[in-house]
Amino acid sequence: MNNPAGSGHTPWPFSTPRPGEPVPAGSPQTLADLGEFELIDLITKGLPQHDQVQLGPGDDAAIITSRGGRTLISLDTLVEGVHFRRDWSSAMDIGRKTVAVNAADIEAMGARPIGLVLGFSAPGDLSVTWVRYFVQGLREECVRAGVALIGGDTTRSRDITLAVTILGDTGPEGPVLRSGARPGDLVALCGRVGWAAAGLAALSRGFRMPKAVVEAQQVPQPPYGQGSRAAAAGATAMIDVSDGLLADLGHIASRSHVDIDVHKGALGMPEPIRSVGQATGTDPYVFLLTGGEDHALAATFPPGSVPEGWTVIGTVQEVHDRRPTVTVDGRPWEGTQGYDHFH
Amino acid sequence: MNNPAGSGHTPWPFSTPRPGEPVPAGSPQTLADLGEFELIDLITKGLPQHDQVQLGPGDDAAIITSRGGRTLISLDTLVEGVHFRRDWSSAMDIGRKTVAVNAADIEAMGARPIGLVLGFSAPGDLSVTWVRYFVQGLREECVRAGVALIGGDTTRSRDITLAVTILGDTGPEGPVLRSGARPGDLVALCGRVGWAAAGLAALSRGFRMPKAVVEAQQVPQPPYGQGSRAAAAGATAMIDVSDGLLADLGHIASRSHVDIDVHKGALGMPEPIRSVGQATGTDPYVFLLTGGEDHALAATFPPGSVPEGWTVIGTVQEVHDRRPTVTVDGRPWEGTQGYDHFH
Repeated sequence: MNNPAGSGHTPWPFSTPRPGEPVPAGSPQTLADLGEFELIDLITKGLPQHDQVQLGPGDDAAIITSRGGRTLISLDTLVEGVHFRRDWSSAMDIGRKTVAVNAADIEAMGARPIGLVLGFSAPGDLSVTWVRYFVQGLREECVRAGVALIGGDTTRSRDITLAVTILGDTGPEGPVLRSGARPGDLVALCGRVGWAAAGLAALSRGFRMPKAVVEAQQVPQPPYGQGSRAAAAGATAMIDVSDGLLADLGHIASRSHVDIDVHKGALGMPEPIRSVGQATGTDPYVFLLTGGEDHALAATFPPGSVPEGWTVIGTVQEVHDRRPTVTVDGRPWEGTQGYDHFH
Repeated sequence: MNNPAGSGHTPWPFSTPRPGEPVPAGSPQTLADLGEFELIDLITKGLPQHDQVQLGPGDDAAIITSRGGRTLISLDTLVEGVHFRRDWSSAMDIGRKTVAVNAADIEAMGARPIGLVLGFSAPGDLSVTWVRYFVQGLREECVRAGVALIGGDTTRSRDITLAVTILGDTGPEGPVLRSGARPGDLVALCGRVGWAAAGLAALSRGFRMPKAVVEAQQVPQPPYGQGSRAAAAGATAMIDVSDGLLADLGHIASRSHVDIDVHKGALGMPEPIRSVGQATGTDPYVFLLTGGEDHALAATFPPGSVPEGWTVIGTVQEVHDRRPTVTVDGRPWEGTQGYDHFH
């Protein structure tokens, strides 16, 4: 990310975003008015520090230090019209979601996020006010997740496209992969499942309520800090639930070559999800078992080592029929499995 | 990147791309036919190894090890219609360019690239054949640059959008920043400037020649390996020329708080650039001095330490008039300076 401070560009008057304040007359109204370098300033000026960030935005690359010399990397792209809609989510919510979905991937490795880089692509007629709110949401969620914005790139595009790569590291307990689940382990969940999917079902039908599930669709709330907690407690495998609980447990099952059985009753049935099921004529367990985007953490633990804050929802078993499977109360799940971006 | 090998998906018949071979009847013709998981297989199956990649695609994050525990990170996004056009560049060229522009950023830090993650966003009606050629180009350039594809994410979008984050490390000589140029240093260049811009001028007017500049527009050729060579030789500041020689030297000047004078005569005037200038009625030095996208390396060195393969093109001086400036043969350059994505 280029950030030629002092190179003669007119400084954008707000070094930090102050949403709610009216845009002064004569200020740039759109990204095209603002220009690329001022946009970069708007995103990067006055960023909070992080003790493992050796060099932030402004050179050809950023530099972080990792404990043990090992760096974890994950990338997630959010595309307007696919992962969010500007008429359904505020700019601030989209900023928050951009960080949350990425931080969850690092948590799911039993690791801590350190820094992220943002590929910000947007149309020239996007309002500067939208960008200011987006940046505020991005920064707020960075603080929540304990991660620093360390660089990126801005470019023009027809649809807003937010490509984030996040970096992290682990302590000596090492990363928790998808492949370590063993027969006899317990399956446990931390965080919510089904809320975002229920929110999407409501929004798709033109409703803005129940508010709790609509907000869950707008901004996921991954259980920050629980990834490294699970690693320290001895988690044998872990994943974040982005595609749906059964689909994501399926990834653990196939990578670990085990069967997994989920106990439906252990999931509970939150009232707002039950109510969306009723209103839309959907079995509410479809939301719980196949809804993605809440970014809960699902992990397997040896018996006796499930940490506080986690709920046991199933068991790990030996593969019974050659191919690893995920069952619900001992039987195959008959409904949809998850989401395919190209179907 | 999810890669549920063994999870029951029908395997895509080509584990490695074999362009030129006709697509068998009944094979998927578009990404929508193929599906997300088969697309991920197509991109990731049989990837070459890299000794600093501890974990490649298939989990919530990839893992690399860095010399000295220090990881360099850079992100560049290529958007269809902005950075490439499918009617101007082949899929294989676009794959190669995607790697080259990113590897150049790591080279420009005096570092070596290790791994990259790819955010691949594309419309569902994109042909699988296009993707196979793209992946082949991507992999070929990875080999050239000495970098491994270690993960990523695929999603649907209206325009092809290629967001790459590349990671690297440096030896004990440490990174070379933009901020270290000192009065008395020499400015040296390694690689080509102006070729891609001349190619763009030709293509924009409907020409496919001179072939050399058109090809330079389609695939940049960063001088791989010269970044760490410059660092070892004692380079004090470095940048890759992506916005234009004067604009990028301007970044070094402002970060280092120095003046830079470029000696036009030292640049030479390649015949194809002269000929595009003539055909389009443009001063050909506009291409050399302000054309970006060739991703040459520009660096500053103490006298006597410029390594072989580098051409001295100017000098670093004390700031004469408060604000750092870049001049050409002692005078301000009157033409355009570079490229702003939102103007």
